[in-house]
Amino acid sequence: RYRPADHTGVVFDGGFWQSWTETVRNVTIPTQHKRLEEEGFLEVLDFDKPAGPLVRPIQPSGLSMQHFFDSDFGKWIEAASYTLKAHPNAVLETKIDAIVEKLEKGQMADGYLNSWFIRREPDRRWTNLRDLHEMYSMGHLLEGAVAYHEATGKRRFLDVMIRAVDHIMATFGAEPGKLRGYDAHEEIELALVKLYRVTRDPRHLKLATYFVDERGRMPSYYDGEARKRGESPDDYVYKTYAYSQAHMPVRDQHQVVGHAVRAMYLFSAMADLSHENDDRTLKEACDRLFDNLVSRQLYVTGGLGPSASNEGFTREFDLPNETAYAETCAAVALGFWSHRMAQVDLDSKFTDRLETVLYNGALSGISRDGEHYFYENVLESHGQHRRWKWHYCPCCPTNIARFITSLGQYFYSTGDHELAIHLYGTNCADLTVGDSFVRLIQETQYPWDGDISLRFAVERPSRFQLRLRIPGWCRQAQISVNGAAVDLDQCVTKGYAAISREWRNGDEVRIGFSMPVERIYAHPAVSEDGGRVALRRGPVVYCIEETDLGGEPQRLRLPASEEISARYDAALLGGATVLEGTALEADIADWQNALYRTAPPSLKERPFKAIPYHLWANREPGAMAIWLQEV
Amino acid sequence: RYRPADHTGVVFDGGFWQSWTETVRNVTIPTQHKRLEEEGFLEVLDFDKPAGPLVRPIQPSGLSMQHFFDSDFGKWIEAASYTLKAHPNAVLETKIDAIVEKLEKGQMADGYLNSWFIRREPDRRWTNLRDLHEMYSMGHLLEGAVAYHEATGKRRFLDVMIRAVDHIMATFGAEPGKLRGYDAHEEIELALVKLYRVTRDPRHLKLATYFVDERGRMPSYYDGEARKRGESPDDYVYKTYAYSQAHMPVRDQHQVVGHAVRAMYLFSAMADLSHENDDRTLKEACDRLFDNLVSRQLYVTGGLGPSASNEGFTREFDLPNETAYAETCAAVALGFWSHRMAQVDLDSKFTDRLETVLYNGALSGISRDGEHYFYENVLESHGQHRRWKWHYCPCCPTNIARFITSLGQYFYSTGDHELAIHLYGTNCADLTVGDSFVRLIQETQYPWDGDISLRFAVERPSRFQLRLRIPGWCRQAQISVNGAAVDLDQCVTKGYAAISREWRNGDEVRIGFSMPVERIYAHPAVSEDGGRVALRRGPVVYCIEETDLGGEPQRLRLPASEEISARYDAALLGGATVLEGTALEADIADWQNALYRTAPPSLKERPFKAIPYHLWANREPGAMAIWLQEV
Repeated sequence: RYRPADHTGVVFDGGFWQSWTETVRNVTIPTQHKRLEEEGFLEVLDFDKPAGPLVRPIQPSGLSMQHFFDSDFGKWIEAASYTLKAHPNAVLETKIDAIVEKLEKGQMADGYLNSWFIRREPDRRWTNLRDLHEMYSMGHLLEGAVAYHEATGKRRFLDVMIRAVDHIMATFGAEPGKLRGYDAHEEIELALVKLYRVTRDPRHLKLATYFVDERGRMPSYYDGEARKRGESPDDYVYKTYAYSQAHMPVRDQHQVVGHAVRAMYLFSAMADLSHENDDRTLKEACDRLFDNLVSRQLYVTGGLGPSASNEGFTREFDLPNETAYAETCAAVALGFWSHRMAQVDLDSKFTDRLETVLYNGALSGISRDGEHYFYENVLESHGQHRRWKWHYCPCCPTNIARFITSLGQYFYSTGDHELAIHLYGTNCADLTVGDSFVRLIQETQYPWDGDISLRFAVERPSRFQLRLRIPGWCRQAQISVNGAAVDLDQCVTKGYAAISREWRNGDEVRIGFSMPVERIYAHPAVSEDGGRVALRRGPVVYCIEETDLGGEPQRLRLPASEEISARYDAALLGGATVLEGTALEADIADWQNALYRTAPPSLKERPFKAIPYHLWANREPGAMAIWLQEV
Repeated sequence: RYRPADHTGVVFDGGFWQSWTETVRNVTIPTQHKRLEEEGFLEVLDFDKPAGPLVRPIQPSGLSMQHFFDSDFGKWIEAASYTLKAHPNAVLETKIDAIVEKLEKGQMADGYLNSWFIRREPDRRWTNLRDLHEMYSMGHLLEGAVAYHEATGKRRFLDVMIRAVDHIMATFGAEPGKLRGYDAHEEIELALVKLYRVTRDPRHLKLATYFVDERGRMPSYYDGEARKRGESPDDYVYKTYAYSQAHMPVRDQHQVVGHAVRAMYLFSAMADLSHENDDRTLKEACDRLFDNLVSRQLYVTGGLGPSASNEGFTREFDLPNETAYAETCAAVALGFWSHRMAQVDLDSKFTDRLETVLYNGALSGISRDGEHYFYENVLESHGQHRRWKWHYCPCCPTNIARFITSLGQYFYSTGDHELAIHLYGTNCADLTVGDSFVRLIQETQYPWDGDISLRFAVERPSRFQLRLRIPGWCRQAQISVNGAAVDLDQCVTKGYAAISREWRNGDEVRIGFSMPVERIYAHPAVSEDGGRVALRRGPVVYCIEETDLGGEPQRLRLPASEEISARYDAALLGGATVLEGTALEADIADWQNALYRTAPPSLKERPFKAIPYHLWANREPGAMAIWLQEV
C-alpha cells in the first residue's frame, strides 16, 4: 500500500513542467475565475436575489447545464487551492472566501446545498437522481472544501460541506426510512473518501461504500423514482442505465460502458474503497475493467469515450479519429483512476496510462497560453477544430487545471519502507518515507530525453526500497547507483525496478531510458487505424499539423523504411522535440475535377515535421493527423 | 428537349429488373399499405373521430413525424398507382379510393388539406413554413393524385388536390395581400410541375416558379414568421437556412448544402422549370450544383449527404463510410434530378449518376425480399446495421418503391426525331418518337454483362436519331447496326452515340460494353478513402460481407497486383455476378491482449468474394466494407 506524495512538497523548478505549472497558476486559475464571473456562474450564489432567466436551456433529459454550475466553481476552488500553500495569494483566497460565504448563507437549514434547487425548485430536490446531478455538484464542492482546508487550514467551507454530507447521510442509505438512491453521475463517492481521509469519520467512508455497493441493484432506484415523478422509466433519454454504470452491480461489470467521465469517477472511488476497506472484490472488478479499457477502448493518446452521443463508450475497438469525443475530463479522470490503482497495486500498467494521459490526451485539453481549451480531443482534424476561451459546459478547464496544480502527488508515492517514482521530470521533492524526511532532486530533460538524475538529500542515512517505474514504452533501460550499474533482470517486478539500500546524503541514481522514435500500430480490429501508423517517442505521441506541412497530413503515406529523426526545437511553443522525415504525398494536382478514378493517386516526396500531439492547435488552424498511412 | 417515356409502356419481361419490379409490385406495395395501417398512418384521416395521443413526439424543432404522415401515404399512392395500368388491381384501387374519400371529406372548405393541422391545430396552419412541412405533405399528395389520375383516369383525388393548390395559390405569392412564404422542405415545386403537365393550367407552373424564385430572398420570410410566433429567429434549431437551401436565392448557389433530400427535390424542380420556362439561369445554377455534387460530395455508390445531424451535406470531400447517412430518399431523388437534367441537356454526366444510384445507393435501400429497408446507406459496417420492417420516419420505403414502379420512364426519352436510351436492361418498350410508334426490344444480361441487343419493331420505316448512352465507366464500346460497325469516334457527343437512319422492322443494334473489374480510387482529399480501393464492374459497386469472408473485411489488404475475377453466381439472392480473388488479412491471432504495439500486423492470405453492394445485408448480419485497403 502506497500513499501519494503531498503535492505541495514537489516543486517543478525547471524542465518540462515548470512552465506548464507556472502558466496554470498564473494564467489559468485567474482567467477561469474571470470566466466564471463573466458567464454568470457565480451569480447563482446570490441567494438573496431572485433567480434570473435561464442561460442554459433545459435538455431533453430535463437537465440544464445550470443544474451543475456549482460543480464548476467547486472544481475551480480545488484547482486554485492546490496552488496556495507554495504560492500564498491573498487575492485568490479572498475570491474563494467570497464564494464560501455565499454557499454558507445559502445552505438550507437541513444542510442541503445546491444553488439550482435552493433558488429555483426547492420542492423538487432529490426527486431525480438519474438526471439532475445534485450529488455530483456537491461532490465537487466537497473536493474543493477539502483542498481549501488542506491549503489554508480554514474550516468554514469544510464545515459547510460536512453539514451537507450529514444531510445526504440522513437522506440516503440502506436503512429503513431512507431513500436507497445514488447519483447517476458519480463523483460524491470519491469526494467522500477524500473527506474521510481528513476527518477519519467512519461514517464518511461508510456513505461512499454504500453508494458504490448500492449502484446497479435491481429493480433500479431510477425506475421507481421515475414512476414517483409520474414518468415511465421507458422514456429515459439515454435508454440504458449502462450510461451511468448503473445497469448491474459494479462488481459484476466486465466491460467499461456508458459516459466516460462517470465511469472513471466511479472506478476511482472503487479503487479508493478497495484500498480503505481492503476489499479485494472491488480491486478485482477494477482490474477487469482496467484491462478491458486499455486492451479494447483506449486511444493511443490515452483519450477515451469515442462517442459524442453518450459522451462515452460504444463497442470495443471503436476508436474513430476525427469524431473522437475523448473528453479532456475523461483523460484527466483516467489519470485519477490509474494513480489510485497504483497505490493499491504498484504496477506500471497503471502508471504507464497515467503518463500517457499526462503527456498526451489530457494535456491536449489546454492551450500553451493556459487560457484556451479543448473539450473533445480528436486525433484527426480537417481544420474545423478550434480551442475555445470558455465552453457551454465548462467542466474540462477546471479539471485539467486541478490535475496540473496538484501534479506533484502523481510523481511519487511512499510506503513505510518504500519510495516509488511513477513519473519523470525535473523537480525537487520533499518526501516522507516512514519516519524519514527525504529530499529528492530529479533533473532531466524528460520527456524529450530519457536521461534522468536522482539525487538524495537525507538528514541521516535511511534504509528504504526505491522503486523506479520502467516505462512500458522503453525497450532498453539502464540504472546505476553512484556509478554502479543495477542488474535490471534481477530487480524488476510489475514494471518497477526495486533498489533496497541505505540511502545517504548525496547518493545519485542515474537512469537512461533509450528513447528512439517508435512506430505504433493498432490492433487490426480498430478499422480506422488499419494500414496506418502513429509516431511516438518516449511517452509523447506525435501528430502532423497542416501549418508545418503546408497541406493536409491525411494525404501523406509514410514509407515503412523511412528513417525519422528527432530534434529539439527551442522555438516551438516554449521548446519541444520534433520529429522529421520525408513521406510521400498523394498528389491532388492531376485529379482535375474527378472525385473517383481508376488510376491510383500519384505520390510525390514531401518532407514533414511532426510535433507533440499535446501542442496541436496552438498555431494557425488547420488539418491534423496522428495516424498516418504507411506504405 | 426530351420527354421521358411513358413508363407504363416499358415492360421488364426478363433480366435484372424483372424480379425487382415484380417483387416491388407484389410484395412491397401491399406490405407498405399494411404497415401504414398497422402503424396508424391512415388513422390520421379519420377526421370524424377525435385525434388520438401522439405516436411520434415533438422534436426540438417543433416538428413531430406525424406532421407529415400525409406525405407517406401520398407517396405510397403514387408508387401503387404506377403499377395499375399494366397490372390492374381492384383491391389496390379500393384501398386508394378509401384514402381519397377520407381526404376529400377532411379537406377544409377553403381547400386546405393537411391531416395534422385540420385535426389538431387548425389555427396554427401556415404559421411555421420553416419547420412543419405543410406544403411538403401536400406536394406528395399532389404527386399521388397525378399518378392515380394518369393510371385510372379517375379525377376525384386530382380535383381535391387542385382545390388544395388553389388554396395555396390564394395564400402565397408575391402579390399584395399574400404571404411571401415558401416551404422549407421542398417538394410542392416539382409536384406543381407534374400537375401543370396534366392540367396545362399556367397558374400551376407560375406557382412553382414563384416558390423557386422566392426561395432565399432576404430578409428571410422565416425570420419574420418566427417573430410573428413570438420567437427569436436566432433560436432556429438548424441554425442556418442553408439547411433548407434558403440561405440565398437559388440562382446564386454554388455549393450543394443542407438537407440532402430537400436539395435534390429543389434541384429537380429547378431542372423542370428550366425546361418548362426555358430558363437558362436555372439550368446554369443546376449545372454548377451538379458539378459541385459529383466532383466533391458524392459517394461512389451515388449516396449523398454524409451527416445524420442535418441529414445532409457538411464540407466538401467529407465522405465517411461507416457513419454515412446517405439516405435512400436522397439517392432516389438524385435519380429524379439527374433524369430531369438529361431531358434538358442530353449528357451522360447526368444519366451516369442516374445509373449509379439505380444499381447502388438507391437500390441498397430495399431488401431482396422487398419488405425490409435501409434509411441510411452506409458504405462500411461492423455489423451493427440491420434492415428494418418499418421506420420511425418511413419516407424511404415509399420513395424507393415509386422509383422502381415507374422505372421505365428512366430508360428512354424521346424527342420529335430522337430516341435516347439512358439505361440498359432487358425490357420491351412501346415508345412514340415524333408521330411514329416504335417497339424496342432490349435483351441483355446487363448489369452482369455488357452485351446488349436492341431490336426494332416498327409499323413502317421511320427516320429518327437513336442516341445511345456510352456509360462513363466503359473504356471500350462497340456498336453495330445490322452487323455493320458504327464508328464511335465520329458519333459520340456528350457521352451519347448518335445513329441517324431510317429504322425498319427487324433492325438490330448490338452493343458491347467491355466490363472488366475496375479498381476505383477516391480523390486524396477524401481522407477516409486514402490508401483504399473500391471494386466496380460495369455500373455495379461491390462490397465484401463478413458472412462470405468469415471475418471483418476491414482487416483485408488487397494487393495492387492481385487479379480479380468475375463469376455469375445463380444461387446468390436470385443471381448476381460476384468478384473473387485473394487478399491479405491483418492477423489478430498474435496480438494477445495488446491494443497497440510497435510491430505491424502480420498478414496472411485470405480468399475473398465480393458481392454487389445493393445486395448487402440480405443474409446473416455482419461487417461490410466497400473501400478496402490496398497494398
